[in-house]
Amino acid sequence: MANRIRLGMMGGGPDSLIGIVHRIAAYMGERYKLVGGVFTADYDLSKSFAEELELDVSRTYSDIDSFIEGENKLPENERIEVITVATPNFLHYSMAKKLLQAGFNVICEKPVTFSAAEAQELSDLVERTGKTFAVTHTYTGYPMVRQLKTMVAEGVLGKIQKVDAQYYQGWINPFIHEPEKRKQVWRLDPAKSGPSCCIGDIGVHSFNLIEYTCGLKVKQVLSDIDTMYDDNPLDVDGTVLLRFENNVKGVICASQIATGEENSLKIAVYGEKGGLRWEQENPNYLYYLTEDKPLQILKPGHDYNGDFAKESVKLPPGHPEGMFDAMGNIYSGVAKALRGEDYHDGAYPNVTDGVRGMRFIEAVINSTKEGNVWKEI
Amino acid sequence: MANRIRLGMMGGGPDSLIGIVHRIAAYMGERYKLVGGVFTADYDLSKSFAEELELDVSRTYSDIDSFIEGENKLPENERIEVITVATPNFLHYSMAKKLLQAGFNVICEKPVTFSAAEAQELSDLVERTGKTFAVTHTYTGYPMVRQLKTMVAEGVLGKIQKVDAQYYQGWINPFIHEPEKRKQVWRLDPAKSGPSCCIGDIGVHSFNLIEYTCGLKVKQVLSDIDTMYDDNPLDVDGTVLLRFENNVKGVICASQIATGEENSLKIAVYGEKGGLRWEQENPNYLYYLTEDKPLQILKPGHDYNGDFAKESVKLPPGHPEGMFDAMGNIYSGVAKALRGEDYHDGAYPNVTDGVRGMRFIEAVINSTKEGNVWKEI
Amino acid sequence: MANRIRLGMMGGGPDSLIGIVHRIAAYMGERYKLVGGVFTADYDLSKSFAEELELDVSRTYSDIDSFIEGENKLPENERIEVITVATPNFLHYSMAKKLLQAGFNVICEKPVTFSAAEAQELSDLVERTGKTFAVTHTYTGYPMVRQLKTMVAEGVLGKIQKVDAQYYQGWINPFIHEPEKRKQVWRLDPAKSGPSCCIGDIGVHSFNLIEYTCGLKVKQVLSDIDTMYDDNPLDVDGTVLLRFENNVKGVICASQIATGEENSLKIAVYGEKGGLRWEQENPNYLYYLTEDKPLQILKPGHDYNGDFAKESVKLPPGHPEGMFDAMGNIYSGVAKALRGEDYHDGAYPNVTDGVRGMRFIEAVINSTKEGNVWKEI
Amino acid sequence: MANRIRLGMMGGGPDSLIGIVHRIAAYMGERYKLVGGVFTADYDLSKSFAEELELDVSRTYSDIDSFIEGENKLPENERIEVITVATPNFLHYSMAKKLLQAGFNVICEKPVTFSAAEAQELSDLVERTGKTFAVTHTYTGYPMVRQLKTMVAEGVLGKIQKVDAQYYQGWINPFIHEPEKRKQVWRLDPAKSGPSCCIGDIGVHSFNLIEYTCGLKVKQVLSDIDTMYDDNPLDVDGTVLLRFENNVKGVICASQIATGEENSLKIAVYGEKGGLRWEQENPNYLYYLTEDKPLQILKPGHDYNGDFAKESVKLPPGHPEGMFDAMGNIYSGVAKALRGEDYHDGAYPNVTDGVRGMRFIEAVINSTKEGNVWKEI
Repeated sequence: MANRIRLGMMGGGPDSLIGIVHRIAAYMGERYKLVGGVFTADYDLSKSFAEELELDVSRTYSDIDSFIEGENKLPENERIEVITVATPNFLHYSMAKKLLQAGFNVICEKPVTFSAAEAQELSDLVERTGKTFAVTHTYTGYPMVRQLKTMVAEGVLGKIQKVDAQYYQGWINPFIHEPEKRKQVWRLDPAKSGPSCCIGDIGVHSFNLIEYTCGLKVKQVLSDIDTMYDDNPLDVDGTVLLRFENNVKGVICASQIATGEENSLKIAVYGEKGGLRWEQENPNYLYYLTEDKPLQILKPGHDYNGDFAKESVKLPPGHPEGMFDAMGNIYSGVAKALRGEDYHDGAYPNVTDGVRGMRFIEAVINSTKEGNVWKEI
Repeated sequence: MANRIRLGMMGGGPDSLIGIVHRIAAYMGERYKLVGGVFTADYDLSKSFAEELELDVSRTYSDIDSFIEGENKLPENERIEVITVATPNFLHYSMAKKLLQAGFNVICEKPVTFSAAEAQELSDLVERTGKTFAVTHTYTGYPMVRQLKTMVAEGVLGKIQKVDAQYYQGWINPFIHEPEKRKQVWRLDPAKSGPSCCIGDIGVHSFNLIEYTCGLKVKQVLSDIDTMYDDNPLDVDGTVLLRFENNVKGVICASQIATGEENSLKIAVYGEKGGLRWEQENPNYLYYLTEDKPLQILKPGHDYNGDFAKESVKLPPGHPEGMFDAMGNIYSGVAKALRGEDYHDGAYPNVTDGVRGMRFIEAVINSTKEGNVWKEI
Repeated sequence: MANRIRLGMMGGGPDSLIGIVHRIAAYMGERYKLVGGVFTADYDLSKSFAEELELDVSRTYSDIDSFIEGENKLPENERIEVITVATPNFLHYSMAKKLLQAGFNVICEKPVTFSAAEAQELSDLVERTGKTFAVTHTYTGYPMVRQLKTMVAEGVLGKIQKVDAQYYQGWINPFIHEPEKRKQVWRLDPAKSGPSCCIGDIGVHSFNLIEYTCGLKVKQVLSDIDTMYDDNPLDVDGTVLLRFENNVKGVICASQIATGEENSLKIAVYGEKGGLRWEQENPNYLYYLTEDKPLQILKPGHDYNGDFAKESVKLPPGHPEGMFDAMGNIYSGVAKALRGEDYHDGAYPNVTDGVRGMRFIEAVINSTKEGNVWKEI
Repeated sequence: MANRIRLGMMGGGPDSLIGIVHRIAAYMGERYKLVGGVFTADYDLSKSFAEELELDVSRTYSDIDSFIEGENKLPENERIEVITVATPNFLHYSMAKKLLQAGFNVICEKPVTFSAAEAQELSDLVERTGKTFAVTHTYTGYPMVRQLKTMVAEGVLGKIQKVDAQYYQGWINPFIHEPEKRKQVWRLDPAKSGPSCCIGDIGVHSFNLIEYTCGLKVKQVLSDIDTMYDDNPLDVDGTVLLRFENNVKGVICASQIATGEENSLKIAVYGEKGGLRWEQENPNYLYYLTEDKPLQILKPGHDYNGDFAKESVKLPPGHPEGMFDAMGNIYSGVAKALRGEDYHDGAYPNVTDGVRGMRFIEAVINSTKEGNVWKEI
């Protein structure tokens, strides 16, 4: 196996949940070594965090510009190779852009930008620089999502004729009903969150999951999104009618006011030969429905799965893996790309997924704004 | 307890599945006595069927007109009191109308008519005659659906803010892809099925379940229904955006090309205080979600249920009841109405439900026809 | 189809839960006609109950002896053919015996007797008289239990190597802790309940389910049953080690103090080629496990099931049937036997099942009594 | 937070599954730093593995004796503090003993020894040296197992009256039927596996889970274990009757010939006020049963859980964690112990659990050997 990949981080400091998710994911495959970064805006705090992690503090920088300058002075075989961008959303675009321009590979939290145009700009930059750029659509890292993708690609379902994805959460309910409480939620602030709350935060995961697993592109959307209150600027709920290539239809149902729901992301894909269903909250079960045979439930760790799913599991059947493991699989995919190894299509979500996602969000917003009309993606 | 209710049947003869469902449902509460009817269009067959059921064959008639004439000649205390209409769909309206006009009570299979105007006509007739008219939206007979209705009515969820219903089946998939095979499916023939297949057959159950449980009226719909092939006249799939009173939004997802799905009717209702979910295929579980307490699963037979659900169960907890029992509960509701006993609101779906259902179907069809626009119900 | 079978009842009167279960089960297949019986010990109440059921009151009798005398005076083609014994337990044996001796067929609630010797006596009588004798082990009527039996018989599992059955309830918990409260529970009174509570009431169902589905005989048992309190005479919990023919081993875990459990009867059978699991509380799912294929879930109404399961279902897939339907299937089996039609092995549990059950109960009691030693069945 | 804990490993080299489980678990809490060890018996391979992990190769040793010698020469603040023993089973005892005697803390894979006497010896050594000694009963690290323990301790169930644990796997089935194939399975070789296969490998986990969660000690066992074939020396299946303090009874059902089962460890605990159930294959659900309230399902990440469960979770509700996370929680418990921080009772399974486990295994084996008699633990 090749040398450890030198990893840096923008954000992800002491109080960041997503920071530790990324670090654990990087540890899991034993292919990365965290070296440094800008862990938080407060330089002193950033350095003490580096000490806690027992890193060489000289590799912790005050800001992204000094990071780029400092690292680029180092010999190539010491320099940080890939940087995880885990800062607040509004910084993703500018940081990712600077890093790419300076010759670094990037693992970027979602959303990559606040607009499709910016996302396209990053995409062009990725193409021009030839760098690796991953977007952490974590759910694509689950082994049974990958098995779903494989089975669709192998034609197990035949021609797809209906797609249904749902993403229901309830966490905004306690805040939405009073303007004062809404201020506690940064996702309801357009300056921090971008042009959408519900669709941008979770609806886009459903969209990504659909395109990732089905290999179909959504052509048009017609949405009815809802802010619940006139003085609330961002959507907290929305249903999106989908039209794919080949006249296939589908639907995405997303909500953050589905009170009591935790993180209920589900997908169902139906073709002329059968159906497949998956649910994020029980990620180790893939339901395969046919007309004339018993319902089948595929689980990780079995030989009956395809290679992609098999490579995405560390434990034998019956030993549950979870969301860290899914994120770890994405880091492994990036590691393979960085080291020039073979990897499966979909081993990590890339900048194109980022662009598609931003186009979806914009089309959904505009569809409702213009009176629930069809918009092209 | 009062004397047995004298029951007649239109249709439901020897080869009818739905006929035996109705008879068993009538037996279950031990309040009905099947007396006669017109079991099938072939009079000889109808009579031999009556013999098989050990009925007095003189009460089996050649057609509805002679039924009405014959029964009305009998003294009132012998005359059949209520007639189940279980014929092919296209006869529902004319038979129900004649029976009401002739002074009989009616239990009518769904759809009650082929148009909202006809349904309204029946509704007016019911009001004028004062007769009891039930529509067999069977799913409303499940105890945990009734508990859902009760909990919403009691304010357990607070103000409702999102409703989601799904009805997915796959049974049309084997027929839809070839015009020759479609001919085997009467539901795909507008002359027999009415103006809609998927929405008329199953989508309307979702709609009914929503209005039944939530006590909210759908004001507007925007649909995208699909016939899959241009030479197929009726819809086999459709998604319907809903707008209720009070700006509440919802969605109905229906399909008969969800390959491998059996009879997957589901409903989820979310309010500001919690959520409730129910699934027809596992009808004895009602999921109650809140923000700060563990997920709760209510089951039939327990004292914690409301009176309506408690009355709708015959066995102790842990002894599953099924769809016959649900239909039996509707028959029990009708029996109470006929005997002047107290009954819970919703003890049987009535002609208003029939009218609402037909209006929903028409609005959904027109919404897609006119380019996916909002239509009033 | 032949004429309706003339059915009588011992017990099952106005306040009897089990009475209505039997009547509905008899109605379900439309092959029985309830004629008369002795519905309760109070003759007047019995007659008014018959009136309520709109029966010919002359066929309601004051006691079993006058029932036998009265019916035997009638011509054979009017006489009641089969009698359901649904009285308190302590009457089962004497009634069944009298009825058999007088030439009637019998459907007997469980337990058929209070001892194996009495059960054997009934068995001998059945053999001598050639009458049909059914024991209502209701759970054998579920379609997926029948499918389990079929699959084992067809060798789907290969040689069986392990059997596990569980029957957990919690309903005795509220009564067991205080002697005063125990008096409210007739099952804790040996005079009414027989020699065992937990094993006799529910453990024996597990035993029956095992022998029914596996086609193996239990040879020996070693038990540890528990009364919880010294002044409580009957067991409320017990675990039973099983040894079958061919050195196969198994276990039955039964309890009525598993607080909060409703009616959790489960069975798992493992062979050298696979495993099968079934749970009574979700009776329409049969889990089929193999080593190299996905978990399969068989459901009723599908062509992939065997004939026995297919005949035991009235509705299409996805329309749940429940416990009444299971009991109805047993009544249908008896009807076929009485009318000389072909029926599947196991279409109704018979007197041999009754004898085996009583032997099991006695062996289990003696095993614990003698110090947890192996006892032959 | 204190400095990283310096971690060493015995075993766990390039081809070891359990090795990576331990390393990931150690990474997860970001409190350990892997320093060196003896990764495999082949010194060269061990060193190249250390290089791959980018460790200082001088801290990789040829064998345990040179490890001890080498590390003890280093200043205390550089010396490895705790060593994970992840070698084949037969080496656990001797290595753990040497390490303790040399002043190191130990995290030992299960089984700690091949006999109860040896386990007791280790226990005495732990007491004498005051070192921390953890046994990796991984399942105790799941948050909902910890919640179960908390709820029992808080009296939520009242007095416990019945305990049932099951551990069914099927993985030995493909090997057991032919002597040649058995040779491929080291667990069937007493020299490598110790005195028991099924009970020693998995039955003991059930036992540990019971004592861990219930806080009750098993006093006596009566077992029926099975080798299936006379020429197979070790058990592959076994049922164990349990008697606890206070006359509470229970049962453990274990099997490795439950064909098709993956890793089905389950526990159910019933008390006079309610019941709790947990299943390893769906570890994020804790079922809480009472008599008069709906079934409740507790899940990780919620405030309604106790502190111990809350500390054992890294993600919000609805984001599944798995077995690595459970093992990570045990490493976190050890870290707290090593750094003198407060930790919950049960934060890591200790040497006493190891001793209890070995006593259980011996008692179970002897019970069957002596004719299925009660044996004291």
